Parts: sequence; C-alpha cells; structure tokens
Amino acid sequence: MGNCKITFHPGGQEAVVSEGTDLLAAAIAVGAQIPNSCGGKGACGECKVVVREGKVVTESSRWLTEEEIKTGYVLACRTTVVGDMQVEIPAESRLEGGKILTETRGDERLADFSSKPEDVVEGIVPEGRALFTPSAMTTKRFLRLPSPTIDDNISDLDRLYREIRQWRNIPQLHIDLASIRRLGGLLRESNWQVTVTIGQRNGITEVIQIESGDTSRRNYGIAADIGTTTVVASLIDLNNGSVLGTKAAHNRQILYGPDVITRIVYAEKEGGLGVLHRAVVDTLNDLISAQATEHRIQLNDVTALVLAGNTTMTHLLLQVDPRHLRRDPYVPTTNFASVIQAVESGIKINPRGWVACMPGVSSYVGGDITSGVLASGIEEMAQPAMLIDLGTNGEIVLGNREWMVCCSASAGTAFEGRGARCGPRSVQGVRIDDRNYEVVCTTTGDTTPVGICGSGYIDALAELLRTGIVDRQGAIRPGITPRARQHNGTSEFVMVWAKESGTSRDIVIPQPVIDNLIRAKGAIYSGAKVLAGQVGLTLQDIDKIYIGGGFGNYLNIEKAIWIGLLPDLPPERFEFIGNSSIAGAKLALLSQEAMREADEIAGRMTNIELCAEPSYMGEYVSSLFLPHTDINLFPSVKQLLGI
Amino acid sequence: MGNCKITFHPGGQEAVVSEGTDLLAAAIAVGAQIPNSCGGKGACGECKVVVREGKVVTESSRWLTEEEIKTGYVLACRTTVVGDMQVEIPAESRLEGGKILTETRGDERLADFSSKPEDVVEGIVPEGRALFTPSAMTTKRFLRLPSPTIDDNISDLDRLYREIRQWRNIPQLHIDLASIRRLGGLLRESNWQVTVTIGQRNGITEVIQIESGDTSRRNYGIAADIGTTTVVASLIDLNNGSVLGTKAAHNRQILYGPDVITRIVYAEKEGGLGVLHRAVVDTLNDLISAQATEHRIQLNDVTALVLAGNTTMTHLLLQVDPRHLRRDPYVPTTNFASVIQAVESGIKINPRGWVACMPGVSSYVGGDITSGVLASGIEEMAQPAMLIDLGTNGEIVLGNREWMVCCSASAGTAFEGRGARCGPRSVQGVRIDDRNYEVVCTTTGDTTPVGICGSGYIDALAELLRTGIVDRQGAIRPGITPRARQHNGTSEFVMVWAKESGTSRDIVIPQPVIDNLIRAKGAIYSGAKVLAGQVGLTLQDIDKIYIGGGFGNYLNIEKAIWIGLLPDLPPERFEFIGNSSIAGAKLALLSQEAMREADEIAGRMTNIELCAEPSYMGEYVSSLFLPHTDINLFPSVKQLLGI
Repeated sequence: MGNCKITFHPGGQEAVVSEGTDLLAAAIAVGAQIPNSCGGKGACGECKVVVREGKVVTESSRWLTEEEIKTGYVLACRTTVVGDMQVEIPAESRLEGGKILTETRGDERLADFSSKPEDVVEGIVPEGRALFTPSAMTTKRFLRLPSPTIDDNISDLDRLYREIRQWRNIPQLHIDLASIRRLGGLLRESNWQVTVTIGQRNGITEVIQIESGDTSRRNYGIAADIGTTTVVASLIDLNNGSVLGTKAAHNRQILYGPDVITRIVYAEKEGGLGVLHRAVVDTLNDLISAQATEHRIQLNDVTALVLAGNTTMTHLLLQVDPRHLRRDPYVPTTNFASVIQAVESGIKINPRGWVACMPGVSSYVGGDITSGVLASGIEEMAQPAMLIDLGTNGEIVLGNREWMVCCSASAGTAFEGRGARCGPRSVQGVRIDDRNYEVVCTTTGDTTPVGICGSGYIDALAELLRTGIVDRQGAIRPGITPRARQHNGTSEFVMVWAKESGTSRDIVIPQPVIDNLIRAKGAIYSGAKVLAGQVGLTLQDIDKIYIGGGFGNYLNIEKAIWIGLLPDLPPERFEFIGNSSIAGAKLALLSQEAMREADEIAGRMTNIELCAEPSYMGEYVSSLFLPHTDINLFPSVKQLLGI
Repeated sequence: MGNCKITFHPGGQEAVVSEGTDLLAAAIAVGAQIPNSCGGKGACGECKVVVREGKVVTESSRWLTEEEIKTGYVLACRTTVVGDMQVEIPAESRLEGGKILTETRGDERLADFSSKPEDVVEGIVPEGRALFTPSAMTTKRFLRLPSPTIDDNISDLDRLYREIRQWRNIPQLHIDLASIRRLGGLLRESNWQVTVTIGQRNGITEVIQIESGDTSRRNYGIAADIGTTTVVASLIDLNNGSVLGTKAAHNRQILYGPDVITRIVYAEKEGGLGVLHRAVVDTLNDLISAQATEHRIQLNDVTALVLAGNTTMTHLLLQVDPRHLRRDPYVPTTNFASVIQAVESGIKINPRGWVACMPGVSSYVGGDITSGVLASGIEEMAQPAMLIDLGTNGEIVLGNREWMVCCSASAGTAFEGRGARCGPRSVQGVRIDDRNYEVVCTTTGDTTPVGICGSGYIDALAELLRTGIVDRQGAIRPGITPRARQHNGTSEFVMVWAKESGTSRDIVIPQPVIDNLIRAKGAIYSGAKVLAGQVGLTLQDIDKIYIGGGFGNYLNIEKAIWIGLLPDLPPERFEFIGNSSIAGAKLALLSQEAMREADEIAGRMTNIELCAEPSYMGEYVSSLFLPHTDINLFPSVKQLLGI
C-alpha cells in the first residue's frame, strides 16, 4: 500500500499515512486536533471535517445533514484515505482553546523549596499527611577543585569525589565509564571548575554528568502524565520547584486504537510494539521540545523526567511487550522499573538524564493511580479515604495509613473524549425546568455551544431523571416534550436546538449515549462497593472521596450522586484533585522522599481483580438502574424522586 | 605506506603490518613469541630469527656470527619490514615451554568454598589474617516459579524477585531495561523455570541475566594479571572456586613500546589510545577463548572477570587517557572504576557479564599491588611487613594493620624480559669456583643453556662479586680469568662457552647489563629504605618481606642480599608469593569480602612519590655500590667479602 499525504487546514499540518488509514487517525498523528468523544467509532458525530480536494471514500452517517454532505462534510473517523487530500477542520470541530486538564493538587505535601534540606522540619499538613523534603531527582553543583600538586596528586576522580563530599556526605558515589574517559581532559580544559549533576537511584548516588564551568542554575525536569488519550507534560525548574509551563497533546498512539486493549492488540503485531513506543515518545518529545523552545532552555539542561501512566502506557513507553496484560490472569511484565537513562527510552532530554516511571500495582492499576494516591495522601490518613479516577478505566483506591486496596472498573469511553478536554464551547451544566421541560445550559466560555462535556452528560442525565423524562432504567420516555423524540428509530433528547447552537444542527443526547453512561457509572459504583466490602466497610464509612481524572472540577457532585455514579454521601466528603497523575509525578520529581513513598504505596496496595470477585457481577447489574436497584442506598435521591 | 604480510614458522602465524614496522613487533602482534629481554632495543641479542624469503633491511649486530649472517640470521628487533616475508624462529629463540609465572599465593585467605556462606565462621589463619567468606562476584541460581493465577497475578518481575528472595534476603534488587523487555516471553517459553545470574556491585544486587532452564552448573570467571609485558588469565569455576587452567601471553601492546612510558606516549597520538586498548583486550580475549575452547566452555557462561594491572595498564584497558600519569604531578584519571559490563570493555565473555578492576593507589602503584597486598595479607598483620614486586617498576608496600605506605622505584627492564618467563633452557643458578673461576650453571630443564634468567643474572653478579671478578662498583676486572674479557671495547664475562651452550655462541654477561642491574637493585633498595624512613623504621624492623613479580621462586635470596637488592635480614623473614597480582584478583573474584578489603587497602595506602622525597636521590646514589656504599648495612656481606 502506498503512502498518501493529507494536509489539514487551517493549521497546515501534513500527515503522510498508509492508504487505508482513517482521516481521524491521520489528523491525530500530526497533532491536528479534532473532537472524537467516542474514540473514532462513528458514535459521537463530532469529528466532522470538509474534504476540499482528493478522492472521498466514506460511510454515510446520521450525524451529517444532506446539505453538509453536499458541501463535502464527512466524519473523519469514517473516511478512508485512498490518496492525497486537502482537508478543512471546520470551526465547530476545532479544538483551539480546548483544554486538557492540567491542574494539579499535591503541592501542599511538599515543604518549602527555598528551605535547605537540612532545615526542613518534618512537618504535618492539616490533614495529618507528612511533608516531603524537597530534594529533586537530579541536582547540579558547581565545584572549584584545587589543582593537583606533587603533595596532593590523588586521581582526578578522587579529587572530584573529595569536593562533592565536602558539599554532601555521600559515602558511595558511582560514575560511568564514559564520564571517566572524558574526565581528565574536561577538568584541565575547565581549569578545574566544573558543575556536576548528581542523582540518587536504586539507593546509590551517581554522577550523571560533568560540565565545564558553572551551569548550576540551569537544571530542569519534566513531570508527565502519559494517558491513553492525552499526554501532559510540565517543565519544572529543579532548583526551586517552580512549574515554568504545562502543555498537553493527544497521545499519537490513538492512531493505532482508542483504548488500551486495541493498543495491546496492535503491539502484538510484527513491529507493532516499536510503532506504539515511538508514537508516545514522539508525543512526549514534541511537548518537551515545545516548552524548551518557549522558555529558551537547552534540552541538555533537562536532566530528569518522572512519568505516570497506566500499566499499558508504561509498558509501551518502555517498549516492554504488553501482551499478557489483557490475558487471564492479567499479569504485567513489570510494575516498576529502575530509573533508566533517557537515551534508553528515546526521550529527548539530556541523553544521560534520568527517566523514572511511577510504580504500578497490577495490569489495570498503574503508576498514574499510585501517583494519585501520593498526591492525595490517602496512604497517611487515619480514616478510610477513597480515590476514584474517572477515565477510560475507573480505577478506585480505598485505604488509610494501615491498609489499601484497589481495583479497576472498566468504564468504557463514557468519561473520556470531549469530556476530558472540556472546550470553551461545550455544555457542562444543565438545568431542566420540571414544568415545561425547557433546558438551560451552562456553557464553558459563555458562548453558543457546539457539543457536550462529560460533566454535561452527567448533569443532563440527572436532570432527565429528576424531571421524569427518563425512567429509572434510563429509557427516554417519548412524548413528554418535543425534545424527547425518535430519530431513525432511536430515542434522543434535544439539549440545544439548532438555532441556538453554534453548529447547524440540534445538539442531542441519544439513547445509546445514556445507556453507555449508565453502564459506566454502574461499573464505577459497583466497583467501589465491592472494594469497600472487601475490607468489611460500606461506602458510608468512607471519610473522604477524592475525584481525579478528566472531569476536573466541572463534575457536579450532587448530580453524579443522583445518577448513582458516586455514593450518597454529604458533599463535603468529596474533593476534586485534578490531574493527580501528573501531580504525583511532580512530587516524585521534586522529592526523593516522595518517590520512596510512591514505591511504598505501590507495594502496600492490594489489588482486587473484580472479574474474579463472585459478588461483583451481581453488584454491577444492580447498579444499572438510576441511581441503583436498591434506592435505599441513595436516601437523598429517594427523597428527590419522591419514591 | 603499504601493508606487508609476515609469516612466522614453524607456528605459521601471519602478521599484516605497515611497512616500517620491526619484525619483533610483528611477531608479538600475532603471538609468535620471541625472547627479547631488552624489550626490542638491540641490547640482548636474544631475538634471533632467520629470514627465509623477502627483502631484508637490517642492522649489523655484535650478537650475530658471520656464519649466522650468511645463513640469513637477523635480530628481529633490528630488522625493518619493507615487504612480505617468510621468517623462521630457530629452536634457540623459541619460547615453547617458556613459562610466565602463573603460580599464586593467597588461597589460604579464602574459607572452604564448599561450605555455605552462612556456615562460614569468621576464622583467623595462623598469621593472624582474617578468612574471607567465599561469595563469587556472580552467582547462578535455578528457580522454579509458580505459574500465575488470577489469585496470584503479581507482575513477572515481582514473581522473579519473590523467588530470588526466598533463596536470599535481598531487599533491593536491580535489573536493566533490556532484561525486563525479554522477561515476559522468556518466562513463558521456559515454562517458568529459569536460571538467574546475580551479582553485587556498588552496594546493590543486580540480576545480570536470566536464562531458560537450569544452567546453574555453568558459571565461570576469569582472574587476570594485566602486566606491561605479559598477560596471565586463569579460568575459574565460580561454583567451587577451582582453577580450571591458567594461560599467559605477551601483552600485544609491546608492539607500541616496551614500557609504560612509551605506551603512554603512543596513547597520546591520534587514535593511539584505541590501538593500545584493543591490543591488550585482544591479548586477553585470546587467552580467554583458548581456555574456553580447551575446557569446552561457552564464553556466555563466563560471567565475571577481575583484573589486576598497574595504573597505566588499567587506564589503557578501560580506554581512559593515561597522558597525565607521566607528567608532574603524576595524576591518574582514576584509581578505581565501578564494575562495568563486559560489553563496555570489549572483553569477550558474556556481554552482560561483569568486569572489575582491582583498585590502585597512584600513577605508579596500581591495582596489581593492591592485589599483592590482598594476597599477602599485610593489611591485617600486627608487625610491619613489606611487599616488593620486582618488575619493570619495583613497587614497594610497607605496613601492618594500623598503617600502610607505598612507593614505586623505577627499575627499568633489568628484572623483566626473559627473566620474567624463565624458559626451560635458561641459566638460573650460578656458582663460580673461587680458585679457577670455573662456572657451574644450574639450568632450568637440565639441558644445555641458551640464555640467562633474571635470577641467573643476580646469581652471577653475586658470584662475580664474591670471587672478586667484579669490584664493588660492578666493574669487570679483566685478566683474572679468560672469561673476563674485552669484546668490541666492552668488558664482558663468559658464563657458558659456545661449545657447552645450546647455541653456536658464548653466553656472556656484558658490562652494560651489570650496570643496568646495579641501577635497578639500587632503585629498589633505596626505595625500600626511604619508605621505611617515612614511618620512622629501619629495614631491620621489618618482620616479613614478601617477594612478588616475575622471578617466581627462582630468586636466590642470599645472593640478592649479596648484591644489595634485598636488605640483609635472616632468610626466614623472606617469602615468595608468586604472581600475587593474579592471586589477589582471584580472591576478589571469589569473595565479595575480599573485593571490599581490596578497596579498603587501596584507600588506606599512603603513596610516597620518591622523586619528591629529598632523601631519595642520596640514598639511590649510595645504593649504586655492591652491596652498598655503607657496607655496615650488610653485615653478612661484609663478612663474606672479608672487608
């Protein structure tokens, strides 16, 4: 099969892809962002583009009006590339200004960076969590060595070590052969004034590089969240812990499948692992280099990187075969890896710089979740707390300073897609009048909406339930209002009429989207319930529930309870912790204590495989009601619905 | 300049060398061994070969008879290659059966290998030295892992570590990314039965390799002595500590200079360092592969190598620029290196196997001497003991369990060359009748001699002194006997007349050889005296003197005292310790305790630069007499000579 060149306008990105690739994949490959809540399944109708030139091989779709079809509109995910094309991404499909959640929590666990390590008093923040001493993964130190004399002619390396030890008492230092080979010349050319970069890994301290002169002010690190859908990277000054910037992009692996299972399948193909490895590394490299350029930083001065990802992402990033992750009994090859040299990973920072992965627990509870626990501090709490990470998989951790259990509940893509990067023109809050069923939408950016956020769907479903437009099984009852209608044999609810929308069509919630959402919320809730049951608790016993994942702070807790996604607890027990994956990575980058804590957290978490829990399937089925088969579990909703 | 092909008979070795190379260098390059006591300076006349075919460009030499010249004899070191040649190494020049000292001491410091580490009681051998627990640098262990189930689905790596920890309690284990990448497939293909090779370096324990099935019986190591002139390697079974064999060869670096200074000069040339690095690595690789073949061992099963060499040799082997070693203030780039992977060094054992260098002290007291101290146990003795290593440099260590000092006295080539590999047809003992000056030689192998050993020269000089044939300045007195004669304006003493020799010429000791020997012995003695003075002792205070180096056990202690090489102490205070360089390397290979002890020894030794000691030059000049200017330092010799 030949290669075809696809040019995307107005950005001008050019993708060279094999014949047979779909247009959405081609766009993602070159960073031309097109919304696709459903991950490219043709189910959301968001990925509308206009083909300006080139042969069009596409499928018909209910999402396209006849007029749109006439003017060249296609769904990118349903269009197959068979030759060169010129493609326009129309205004309503553009994601400029779209936002991948990059806010983080966890900074309050780190002691003041300006204080010296020896000055930090072991502190306790109000929640009873220990304060980590700042000590970045890599540190630079400028050294003036005395020139050798006949009375002081110890070896160059001993001289260097002696000076390092006058700064810090490090009994065992390590240096690699390549550095030794350069040492004699470098010290003399530098007139014995050099900057050493040192770091701790695997319990020993290493000299990572030696530079001529004083470069100690230029030492940077990257904390990265490697998600199945998105990759987020923060550039951090390791001298003071300040975040210089954060950038996000789609994970280019999307080209090869929307979720971890399809990626694993792809990785099993001949050469597939290498392709996926390069795709995510390229995504990350672009984010890093863009920030380095923006902040006028040399990549060589980036000496450390900590990344947090789910277990599949970590395997793919390290180019470790993930095939056994998806097969009973779901065994990862590794849940942790030693800190490696950047050059081994293909990540373009200083080649001798260090790359560390946050440790994971099991095939479906990865380093991103350990990171989340670290950021939230559950592992040090007196009372039981829960972390729920709402993504493609809903990972759940329950624990306190004594014990921790975790599981992963497959939520599908219901909480991913557009929801994860709630753009400036999305419906994110909904109120339905219970007399006339009119809909009042809150839109991000206060403009006319072009789509619906994940949080908007949850809000809408809660309102539809409250107003009786859907029943407790989630079925849309036709006839109550013109908004509840049939279209091509499927029920749907019109959220925004075409005339009020930023597109030329009605913005609707179709029945399948509701069904999908119910399955997703059912998986999460029943997972949490089974997990609590494992340690003899009920969900009511949980003191605090931390919400992480793509929703950010947009999720309306009350309405998430109405639909039965979250347990019926007082609102003050819930807390949003943003992108806790990158938050934990940042902590580990800036504090070796935090990194050790992460290792301990991963080691302490007991993984529960829900599929092997006899009670899980029953709980899941009971959760496929709104809010639940057993309404008594949701007293506030019982009252709301007047049952 | 073109390349020329030189074929050496009867061995059939073929050297391809640049035009202008000398024949001796060409021979050494391909391992065709030709004696050359003087290191290729035309001074010893030993490197006689016969050119059978090819153009001869050579210098005339007093060592060749007219008849020899007619039949094509040349000195290899004085013959320049200008085209292809067929060269025969005549019987008297062959080194077959020649012996590089490979005997070692030090085994008595190692506890019984068959005992388990935990069973070894900290023992003390009679001399008061601690016993090292056997624990080889690398160990193999066969593991049967339970197959994963849904109730036991920890990661592959955790499963492996769990099993390792059931064998040994190792809190922190390390494994490299390449091994992790292969792990998932390997475990399953092996039906969960694998052999791990683990080792400790830099204070952490690493999984070096993982093999399918049970290979635990096949684990071998190499202990090597990397000398300026010779390389010796022992193949050792790491499961029981037994030495399977020892082989020796000339260091192929001889092609680029006979001593460390000329090698350093060569290394400073463009590309020179790489050439010298490969030369010594090739020498070692040939020794290793020859033994592997002989014992039917796969190189992949050789997983550890410990080498001991002087500081220049260690730098060249690790390909570290040695240029500063020879320049005031004589600074090595490194006296130690972390354990490296074999693949980094170019040494052909298992590429993931480990290579460790014995740590050195200074530019002229290297890992070979640390090794010697380790083998002799000086560092644990109650009374002061001395180690004298008689080689190109005479390194001297003086110390006990409280303190240690060391120095290096440049002895030139007097104790090297043929002396270091006393062949089966060399004079090694001499007795001169004090009435008729007839000479009785003891010859190795009881055959007619073809040359003189280093120990033979010392014996001869002592006898020449005792009988008055040489005076106390070492000058041959002509006329006493026809053996003491003039030849081409130089005095010489005929040790073996042509008719009794295995060659067609007289075997003689020329005056320059005696002068050289006196300078060498003077350097050693005065070095030892200055060293003792540094700690407020006299040589009489030394309880034990260990003699290491090429002489092996052939050195006649009494006669070495006569000429003033060794101090005038009772014979029972001297002990030969053979090739203590390889002995220490073997200890370090077989016991991690011994390796740690070597690090401590190197750290404890205080290096004295003789050139910076004001007293040294005076002591040296005083030592250029036989036995010494101050005869009272040698009461037994005073009595012998009746002074």
